Amino acid sequence: MTDGFPARPGALDVVEDIFDPNADRLREECGVFGVFGHPEAAALTALGLHALQHRGQEAAGIVSYDGDRFHAEKRLGLVGDHFSDGKVIARLPGRSAIGHNRYSTTGETILRNVQPLFAELDAGGLAVAHNGNLTNAMTLRRELIRAGAICQSTSDTEVILHLVAHSRRPRIIDRFVNALREIEGAYALVALSTKKLVGARDPLGIRPLILGELDGCYILTSETCALDIIGAKYVRDIENGEVVIISEDGVQSLRPFPPQPMRPCVFEFVYFARPDSVVQGQSVYEVRKRMGMELARESAPDADVIVPIPDSGVPAAIGFSRESGIPFELGIIRNHYVGRTFIQPTQGVRELGVRMKHSANRSQVEGKRIVLVDDSLVRGTTSLKIVKMMRDAGAKEVHFRLACPPIMHSDFYGIDTPERDKLLAATHTLEQMREFIGADSLAFLSVDGLYRAMGYDARDAAHPQFADHCFTGDYPTALTDYSGETPRQLSLIAEAS
Amino acid sequence: MTDGFPARPGALDVVEDIFDPNADRLREECGVFGVFGHPEAAALTALGLHALQHRGQEAAGIVSYDGDRFHAEKRLGLVGDHFSDGKVIARLPGRSAIGHNRYSTTGETILRNVQPLFAELDAGGLAVAHNGNLTNAMTLRRELIRAGAICQSTSDTEVILHLVAHSRRPRIIDRFVNALREIEGAYALVALSTKKLVGARDPLGIRPLILGELDGCYILTSETCALDIIGAKYVRDIENGEVVIISEDGVQSLRPFPPQPMRPCVFEFVYFARPDSVVQGQSVYEVRKRMGMELARESAPDADVIVPIPDSGVPAAIGFSRESGIPFELGIIRNHYVGRTFIQPTQGVRELGVRMKHSANRSQVEGKRIVLVDDSLVRGTTSLKIVKMMRDAGAKEVHFRLACPPIMHSDFYGIDTPERDKLLAATHTLEQMREFIGADSLAFLSVDGLYRAMGYDARDAAHPQFADHCFTGDYPTALTDYSGETPRQLSLIAEAS
Amino acid sequence: MTDGFPARPGALDVVEDIFDPNADRLREECGVFGVFGHPEAAALTALGLHALQHRGQEAAGIVSYDGDRFHAEKRLGLVGDHFSDGKVIARLPGRSAIGHNRYSTTGETILRNVQPLFAELDAGGLAVAHNGNLTNAMTLRRELIRAGAICQSTSDTEVILHLVAHSRRPRIIDRFVNALREIEGAYALVALSTKKLVGARDPLGIRPLILGELDGCYILTSETCALDIIGAKYVRDIENGEVVIISEDGVQSLRPFPPQPMRPCVFEFVYFARPDSVVQGQSVYEVRKRMGMELARESAPDADVIVPIPDSGVPAAIGFSRESGIPFELGIIRNHYVGRTFIQPTQGVRELGVRMKHSANRSQVEGKRIVLVDDSLVRGTTSLKIVKMMRDAGAKEVHFRLACPPIMHSDFYGIDTPERDKLLAATHTLEQMREFIGADSLAFLSVDGLYRAMGYDARDAAHPQFADHCFTGDYPTALTDYSGETPRQLSLIAEAS
Amino acid sequence: MTDGFPARPGALDVVEDIFDPNADRLREECGVFGVFGHPEAAALTALGLHALQHRGQEAAGIVSYDGDRFHAEKRLGLVGDHFSDGKVIARLPGRSAIGHNRYSTTGETILRNVQPLFAELDAGGLAVAHNGNLTNAMTLRRELIRAGAICQSTSDTEVILHLVAHSRRPRIIDRFVNALREIEGAYALVALSTKKLVGARDPLGIRPLILGELDGCYILTSETCALDIIGAKYVRDIENGEVVIISEDGVQSLRPFPPQPMRPCVFEFVYFARPDSVVQGQSVYEVRKRMGMELARESAPDADVIVPIPDSGVPAAIGFSRESGIPFELGIIRNHYVGRTFIQPTQGVRELGVRMKHSANRSQVEGKRIVLVDDSLVRGTTSLKIVKMMRDAGAKEVHFRLACPPIMHSDFYGIDTPERDKLLAATHTLEQMREFIGADSLAFLSVDGLYRAMGYDARDAAHPQFADHCFTGDYPTALTDYSGETPRQLSLIAEAS
Repeated sequence: MTDGFPARPGALDVVEDIFDPNADRLREECGVFGVFGHPEAAALTALGLHALQHRGQEAAGIVSYDGDRFHAEKRLGLVGDHFSDGKVIARLPGRSAIGHNRYSTTGETILRNVQPLFAELDAGGLAVAHNGNLTNAMTLRRELIRAGAICQSTSDTEVILHLVAHSRRPRIIDRFVNALREIEGAYALVALSTKKLVGARDPLGIRPLILGELDGCYILTSETCALDIIGAKYVRDIENGEVVIISEDGVQSLRPFPPQPMRPCVFEFVYFARPDSVVQGQSVYEVRKRMGMELARESAPDADVIVPIPDSGVPAAIGFSRESGIPFELGIIRNHYVGRTFIQPTQGVRELGVRMKHSANRSQVEGKRIVLVDDSLVRGTTSLKIVKMMRDAGAKEVHFRLACPPIMHSDFYGIDTPERDKLLAATHTLEQMREFIGADSLAFLSVDGLYRAMGYDARDAAHPQFADHCFTGDYPTALTDYSGETPRQLSLIAEAS
Repeated sequence: MTDGFPARPGALDVVEDIFDPNADRLREECGVFGVFGHPEAAALTALGLHALQHRGQEAAGIVSYDGDRFHAEKRLGLVGDHFSDGKVIARLPGRSAIGHNRYSTTGETILRNVQPLFAELDAGGLAVAHNGNLTNAMTLRRELIRAGAICQSTSDTEVILHLVAHSRRPRIIDRFVNALREIEGAYALVALSTKKLVGARDPLGIRPLILGELDGCYILTSETCALDIIGAKYVRDIENGEVVIISEDGVQSLRPFPPQPMRPCVFEFVYFARPDSVVQGQSVYEVRKRMGMELARESAPDADVIVPIPDSGVPAAIGFSRESGIPFELGIIRNHYVGRTFIQPTQGVRELGVRMKHSANRSQVEGKRIVLVDDSLVRGTTSLKIVKMMRDAGAKEVHFRLACPPIMHSDFYGIDTPERDKLLAATHTLEQMREFIGADSLAFLSVDGLYRAMGYDARDAAHPQFADHCFTGDYPTALTDYSGETPRQLSLIAEAS
Repeated sequence: MTDGFPARPGALDVVEDIFDPNADRLREECGVFGVFGHPEAAALTALGLHALQHRGQEAAGIVSYDGDRFHAEKRLGLVGDHFSDGKVIARLPGRSAIGHNRYSTTGETILRNVQPLFAELDAGGLAVAHNGNLTNAMTLRRELIRAGAICQSTSDTEVILHLVAHSRRPRIIDRFVNALREIEGAYALVALSTKKLVGARDPLGIRPLILGELDGCYILTSETCALDIIGAKYVRDIENGEVVIISEDGVQSLRPFPPQPMRPCVFEFVYFARPDSVVQGQSVYEVRKRMGMELARESAPDADVIVPIPDSGVPAAIGFSRESGIPFELGIIRNHYVGRTFIQPTQGVRELGVRMKHSANRSQVEGKRIVLVDDSLVRGTTSLKIVKMMRDAGAKEVHFRLACPPIMHSDFYGIDTPERDKLLAATHTLEQMREFIGADSLAFLSVDGLYRAMGYDARDAAHPQFADHCFTGDYPTALTDYSGETPRQLSLIAEAS
Repeated sequence: MTDGFPARPGALDVVEDIFDPNADRLREECGVFGVFGHPEAAALTALGLHALQHRGQEAAGIVSYDGDRFHAEKRLGLVGDHFSDGKVIARLPGRSAIGHNRYSTTGETILRNVQPLFAELDAGGLAVAHNGNLTNAMTLRRELIRAGAICQSTSDTEVILHLVAHSRRPRIIDRFVNALREIEGAYALVALSTKKLVGARDPLGIRPLILGELDGCYILTSETCALDIIGAKYVRDIENGEVVIISEDGVQSLRPFPPQPMRPCVFEFVYFARPDSVVQGQSVYEVRKRMGMELARESAPDADVIVPIPDSGVPAAIGFSRESGIPFELGIIRNHYVGRTFIQPTQGVRELGVRMKHSANRSQVEGKRIVLVDDSLVRGTTSLKIVKMMRDAGAKEVHFRLACPPIMHSDFYGIDTPERDKLLAATHTLEQMREFIGADSLAFLSVDGLYRAMGYDARDAAHPQFADHCFTGDYPTALTDYSGETPRQLSLIAEAS
């Protein structure tokens, strides 16, 4: 770990280098931010997106509205690479703005797909930014094209815009609600019209969206860390199925869906959210530490030292050490200067087992029985390299502990999971996994242990408190596009620019 | 002049530098190219666009179709800057392709506006490239948005695509013809569907479009020079109001409009077309030389030497010299290395009257009575600098001759003319113009002299043989968007990327 | 902290952004690497320099020798930005290579100054890379110019090359030793001739240099972490005043200076070396943890939580927590995506107290008495911001602890320290410092505590075991260029490229 | 041709594309410029170098002196690409400056070799820029290295600097003259010290150097066109063997060599100088026109039209047409948008015989007997393509005329000629050459015709008026480095950056 938050595969770590633990991780698709009525709207949005950088590192975009025209700036790369430039911010005048960080699941990252997307409607302009994934987007897209719509992107967000454009209702907000009633899946949306900032969270609240406030102006964003960076105050989480409308008249709420219990994505706690964020009222850092403590209760081995896998395993390792009494040491050191790429070494060099990103801190490992603690295990390809690195550094025993249950099912709600057959836990028994990674012992946190770390006695099988389908296979919504009959319709055009 | 074709304000000359004659010129908006059924479709299109570079230097795009998917590559800059790269061509597989060179009249040149534009229709994909300008695009755009269309560009070409998408006819070609019936203005279109390459020329044939053939495959393009570069054979000009459909079955013609006499744009001869092109059956170089000869007949002064203004004035100057018997000399030398920009010199240097792009060839000017010959005069700001440069080099007398009539009216058909009040001839008498540029005498070719150079006895006032509105104010079509009531509707969004 | 090694001001952190703790740190000047006789010489050198990236991030260079010619590649930026490219490595053929990471103390970073430097001597080529600083370089440079030498760089390394070139001895190794006898200060040098790889360490061994071995080939480098990355074996530290000559015949040692006790720079332990390196036989991580333990013994306050300042304070904070029994928590979270620059926010945003790089983990801070632990304090400007951030997050008390003594004197041996009057401890009493940074209490490790952490009972005042002049003012060598009479002679030329 | 000056292979034309006449041309190596005492020294130098761009397009550099320090900016690429930037000029303060355009004969173009070169001497700084080539540079370089000099570039200009540095004379000007006495070959040098601007021309005056004046300040440069661009006045040509010293006290002359008749390079007239320059008192344009007239007198065929090969053949073609009475027409059109590279087309496209850069103006060629006029013939590879292009366009007969004698010998004085065995005229008879290029007839201007065009009755074989060795093999100086015994010593280091 390190500074305490999980290393997400970002621009700084993006390449699958020789020894990159992040190549073997889940990826989030997006972060959103919106602010209404503030004189520094675009600059605040840039800062908010910077704080949300861990949610998407491929591209970022901001749309502002200056009372007369909308202004858009979209760029591939990190927020700080482009939106730290005063000239870019100056091209985004106005007192309202929304922004988006993107991580794309497909190979093609092209500017056309970078959000927020914008449509010029009869009633005025509308910009929309989206975190999540619609599970009937392909189906809707086909119907829209039949009706004469021209789709310019392959993003499901554009489907929402077309639904709004095609709605026969006169007011934009009514068209927007109409559109929400047609879509299915997980979403946290922020939208900007000439008069309003709108936020919407899917009926189960799978993806997060919160309300903040700064200088009397309202903010919508994915995590509290985006409020902290600008000194804004947290107001409340948007409820599942709620649509909030922020205008000169303040905040108004619509609830266009029948009420049902919330079921937020458990992975925000396990992996995605920043450790200093507070999600659904709980400190993410504390929850992760408790996961480590539960894990220690369930499966602490007899060992000399707890070694976190940087950076994602640190909070759980601290909890594991606290509970087990085994000392916490930095047995693995991370190289901070691993940039966007590193060496395609010659074959000769490759065989040396080069360590570009991490190295063993031999003084803490040699001759010791060590417990490696990480937050999750996906393909396992990195874990086996780390186990080998520890053994090469002289570890006497290597015990591997994971602070979440085995990931056995793909996600369809905005998390980039590998196909099911690439998930190690979906195809291997515990013993086979242990053998694969080469550890002396292997243990995962139990599902109930996970729920205990989050403050429940156990999972409520009848009404699960979280969207935990990756562990349980219990998908919380219909999956229209994935039901076999509807082929995932690809765009007829391939475009690189 | 120089190698014989007019210097168009291109990427290499694009900046309005201190002494740039081209800053004071008309600009064309586009060139188009399409080829059907050739194994080297994209490479041929790149070469054709390179030969048409003078028609637009801001951006270029190619869309190919490989029998399964369409592929698009669009780039800001010159064709040769990007499409000479074998890797780019390799991303454009397939035996059919269309391409486009763009010169934009607005300040914003963004990739979204670069053509060909593409739409995924229910019946398959359609890519469209357009040279010209619709005079009712704004009006149509407003209606389309009311009907739920989302416009992604500010290009009038997108209007055509939406008209096609919204048409209720099942066959794409019928939808396309339906769309043509709704648009007004000047256009030469090439469109590519999964099965066909389609070309269309407006009812008056204002913008040019020709049919060529290579290795048994058909080609559509703006000028013959794009055929010459690839060794293709000229077949015929597309007729005014004709739609040609090229498919595996050969070439088929539709004529969806009532027949009327052709009225091509006279500026193709005066200025735009390359001198080695043959337009409507006439060599452009020969026509320009004859313009110079007519001009000499009308207004040859008593002088020692004919000096062409490089590069545009050369063919007319050769004709003028031939007819008048006054020797032709390169009294002005052009610097070939004026790149995309040059010096923002300090104030001290600016006052030296620096000559970045041209210089006087003093040995041919000093002590002589010279006749400067150019093809046209727009604002006159450059002409006055050239006259002064000649006087500084010791010219005894400076006579200025223009190989076309005074430009007194704006164009709305795809030529970027200044607003009327910026046109020198629209606001000054001949004597005032002479005084403004500082010449000893000034003369323009007469309108009838222009028609004589093109092989007619005179202009037929009842049925003018050409679209010559810039000289005569006689606009050949309705101008719906410019009729005062319909404000030119701007996009609600400003986007730089 | 984080992965456990001090955040050095690197390419990834280089800009003095709004809230950058690293802007307030010491900087190392260089890392060196050399390998003799290995088929992958350049690739190994690139990897070694990558592992040494913390020693210098402004530029890197490699020179290889292929038996016929030398080959050089030098680049501004990180090693991984350029030398990870197989094409660059392919331009460095040969079985011997040396490399250098540079951090420059002056504003001008130009390619001419990037090492290794190369000279074509009568007897063949010689490339030299240098970590350290000569304290009589200016004096020597003036003499060399008087003798007809032309200096192309402002680097003191070039002085060494000229001394070699001007030496009258026939053998390069004798010329090299001659040159060493004329220079004064601290240095670790690696040099490559057509036949030999040479290493040299200054008479006191101030700067580090070690010998390693891979596949029977010898390696010279600054730290053991550069051996670990390529799987090489540590052989021994080069002794103070030793010159090692590596050739086909193995390793030979010269000792051209009178013997004296070693006095290595204490800052390698305090700050510079990577925590996983072993310096002079001791684990850097362990020494830092012991510094934290000594510090806790000397000045542990009554508190609730130990918070490391990421990343540099982590090992000491772990030791402090272990010794004091106060729990260790990540109370400050570091943003991994702070790139090379970040936002020049508008004035309005700046006043929000934006936190680009770190944020408080409020759940661990609010209502608590916290102990901040860092490795060292230079100007104090960052410390005061961090204290304020902790108070804003609700800390009840903030105690600041530094794991080294007060820095009161500048360095002249290759560490970029501020001028003395910018060093907080040189101009403030302890109480004034506490007040400046706004802490409830402030304490530094004592000099003897520092020596205890490194395994001694105390500092030996008669024969200090380390170069510790920054704490004590006891400079171990003459300082000819800085003695007042010799002005630091600047180059007559300013060149940016 | 075109605007009347020869197309040199420049940044805009640099790549040997499929059909590039310039790939088959001679290349000049350099242009120099210096100004003393003017407040806009660097800006004037940038403008002067821009006007001299045809003399070298690979790189440019300027060194200024502000009374305290020298400032250098060097860049690869065109002058206008970099030195048009006000920020770059602002980094070159001071009232004196010298500059250099470089064309390198070797493959490696690296910044280290870009001139002016600078040395910090005991007596102060000295910057030197050089047009020409020393024929004993390798020999001198070897001696200097033996004496302890370190050479950083492979430029012969550095040899001059080392000779100056090693001279024992106290005054820089005496050292400079000492250095001149050791070098052999052709040179036009400008040098800048803290007090003086110095110019020097080789004993025979092979390379050109002139004196100009602006606002009472003196200027040294290669051609008059560099004076014209800034409105400066031509004063006189520097004499062969003259050293001029410009200081606050005005212009002083030294003549360190025994007097001998001047023998300037005839190629300045034939090819290199800009047509608007006046060289040795004669208008280059006029001389070239007269070469065409002499050529017509010697070998005008019975034909219908004179076609210049753009751009270099235009002035001669005008003269040829004038003398022969055969009309001049632009039968070949040049594409202005051929950029730095163009298409590596697929094999299929290549076979089409693509014409990227020139095209036939069929209307002027078809069915005609044409005379192609060019300034010179080197390898002949382009000429044969142009002849074929004319035949493809329907020419009935193609007669080829060259406005200079056959080039049969290499140059060693700063012109990049191919090895002798690549020179068509060195290895083929006239009839073989005609057959090779495929013309119906071929003729060159005679040596005496060349001298007549320059105002002499004939070549004076005893004391030739020009350096004409490429035509005659009569080399005007010793060729020490090329005498067989001294191998061209290459640098021991290969460096790309």
